[in-house]
Amino acid sequence: MTLIVEKFGGTSVGTIDRINAVADHLKGKHESGESLVVVVSAMSGETNRLVALAKELSDTPVTREMDVLLSTGEQVTIALLSIALEERGLGSRSFTGAQVRILTDNVYGKARIREIDDHNIQAEIEQGNIVIVAGFQGTDEHGNITTLGRGGSDTSAVALAATLKADECRIYTDVNGIYTTDPRIEPEARRLDRITFEEMLELASAGAKVLQSRSVEFAGKYKVPLRVLSSFEPDTGTLIFYDSGEHMEQPLVSGIAYQKDEAKLTIRGIPDQPGVAHRVLEPISSANINVDIIIQNLGADGATDMTFTVPREDFDSCKTILENTAKELGAAEVLGDSNIAKIAVVGVGMRSHSGVADTMFKALADEGINIQMISTSEIKISVVIDDRYLELAVRALHKAFGLAEV
Amino acid sequence: MTLIVEKFGGTSVGTIDRINAVADHLKGKHESGESLVVVVSAMSGETNRLVALAKELSDTPVTREMDVLLSTGEQVTIALLSIALEERGLGSRSFTGAQVRILTDNVYGKARIREIDDHNIQAEIEQGNIVIVAGFQGTDEHGNITTLGRGGSDTSAVALAATLKADECRIYTDVNGIYTTDPRIEPEARRLDRITFEEMLELASAGAKVLQSRSVEFAGKYKVPLRVLSSFEPDTGTLIFYDSGEHMEQPLVSGIAYQKDEAKLTIRGIPDQPGVAHRVLEPISSANINVDIIIQNLGADGATDMTFTVPREDFDSCKTILENTAKELGAAEVLGDSNIAKIAVVGVGMRSHSGVADTMFKALADEGINIQMISTSEIKISVVIDDRYLELAVRALHKAFGLAEV
Repeated sequence: MTLIVEKFGGTSVGTIDRINAVADHLKGKHESGESLVVVVSAMSGETNRLVALAKELSDTPVTREMDVLLSTGEQVTIALLSIALEERGLGSRSFTGAQVRILTDNVYGKARIREIDDHNIQAEIEQGNIVIVAGFQGTDEHGNITTLGRGGSDTSAVALAATLKADECRIYTDVNGIYTTDPRIEPEARRLDRITFEEMLELASAGAKVLQSRSVEFAGKYKVPLRVLSSFEPDTGTLIFYDSGEHMEQPLVSGIAYQKDEAKLTIRGIPDQPGVAHRVLEPISSANINVDIIIQNLGADGATDMTFTVPREDFDSCKTILENTAKELGAAEVLGDSNIAKIAVVGVGMRSHSGVADTMFKALADEGINIQMISTSEIKISVVIDDRYLELAVRALHKAFGLAEV
Repeated sequence: MTLIVEKFGGTSVGTIDRINAVADHLKGKHESGESLVVVVSAMSGETNRLVALAKELSDTPVTREMDVLLSTGEQVTIALLSIALEERGLGSRSFTGAQVRILTDNVYGKARIREIDDHNIQAEIEQGNIVIVAGFQGTDEHGNITTLGRGGSDTSAVALAATLKADECRIYTDVNGIYTTDPRIEPEARRLDRITFEEMLELASAGAKVLQSRSVEFAGKYKVPLRVLSSFEPDTGTLIFYDSGEHMEQPLVSGIAYQKDEAKLTIRGIPDQPGVAHRVLEPISSANINVDIIIQNLGADGATDMTFTVPREDFDSCKTILENTAKELGAAEVLGDSNIAKIAVVGVGMRSHSGVADTMFKALADEGINIQMISTSEIKISVVIDDRYLELAVRALHKAFGLAEV
């Protein structure tokens, strides 16, 4: 018996028509002999509607109650989808996170799954029923409702697939797979048939928004084959698989990711002493600003410079924090640039091949694009450039690595 | 310590403004030293919205999933009200029916409460928190979500008050209490300060719509003092109390209730034999038609006539059923009248005083209103009249029993 976990996001269940389409799709899968556990998000727009209601009552609504509120979104969807399946003569049973039970810690709004009791689900599967589970939510050990935070439904699906030892976890979304780069920028971008977890993680961290890093990490850890497909067109999508490192030749570069709306800050002339990096970055992370690439250069006279990137929306507040730190440390100056972009090439093949960085830098140089910062990992090379050249850089790199060809 | 259960219906929490007003009200009650358990309904319109979504998917949505769906309505309200209270610096905790836990049978859509575990609520009360409970819902012993059916939030409130041995259960609604009759018909109708459970029950069964019979029954059974108040104007409302029958003089008649949209059916010339009433009524109740007043007269020649009232919307289908029965039984004919109304005078004082019926019949006769059927209980006299005379009859009886005066 093939056991599949399928997950449908908010746009895939955003209207009654869409829910009917998903029910038809599931009927087909069920009739082809697959046992199905289906994870759904709130109908698109619903979470925003609920958040807006809460914000009318409080600027800082208490987190426990936000989870009680938001979890209703998925609960509506599980009931509607189950009604649609029963209307088609299929046995179906819905479960909230608490009913499953998906046990989490008690960090409201961004809870982490600790354990899933699959007893109830297994019993329904054995009865031949299609199981519908509310994504994004769980319960703590005291029975409080928790939510998993952004992208939480993907995490729910992957965690269920891992617990149930499912044959595959399919994430249905509004795109039909993972591309070599953003097709809106490079029309020749090609849909990948497969990609490794490591590459997917690096692409996600470099701005490819199809899947949240957290669910990919989770799937990789438990070696759950993950497939990204469109819920609007029948196709095989992209399989994200665990690469045991033995059985196949991997392409040098699998994809190119980018992140716009980044900013860069530099603090110059700080003392080159142990603990200085911490003193610079601690107040920034305390303000909940995510620092990404960090580069430190040795300067002259025992002083040093440090440069890092932050989301552009945090640029102003980060600059203020940094100027205070500069005064305390007696630093020379603070410089900032809020018009940068980050671009990265990713591929497991890099591990065993040199020359990727060189190809990348040459392609950018050929277009006259200056590289402001460089950061590398085992399977990723990221650079920071002037954001005016972003689209040009994406197309140049896509071509340089021959990504349009299979 | 005074422990109060307060219940707010859909219109009382129908907008963010209304929720803020309820939160302000609760703050005042809390500061005056009352311990509060608050039961809320879904925001007005929400239940209808959810039902409409389900109906788009199925004409007969599966009942288990309807309960999963509809229970989200109250869950949204408990979260929002709790957010509003916390915003005012008050400790608050919301509970769904399952979280409380309100254990019911598993008759989806009209479950009955079996037992309430008040452990979680008591713990929060001891901490000085205001407890917010989702009305209308519970859970069966297997953890399935159930709903209590129409008026279920009132039942939730009364059941909680009984379990917690609350000092009073206050039902906030869009009217400010129980009236001697409908003020839209008789402008001199007077708001009652108090009324007994028995009277309230008879008024409810005779068409006074403020409270559902079920919650009044429940409150009477457990002797929970029940108060009906307006959530829009501060006032003391009407107290519904348990009459031990010893300590006070009761008014002869407390109120006049009526029911429009009734119809009457007569089957003539049926055999006067044991089992005939059953053969006439069984197919009607099987069709889920509620038969109210039933009168059987002995006719001539060993035959008999039977007349009964049904809701007007069921008139046509009931007539068809009755005509079939008439053929089977060899009855003489079936007669029907879909333009009747029911009117009742209610009062515990009737028990010890004769003459109420006489006063009633004389008042109607003085207005030239013909009485078509009469039915009596210990504290109620109901008559069926031509519905054209309904308003006239209400005003005549209100005057005849001096209900405008205290």
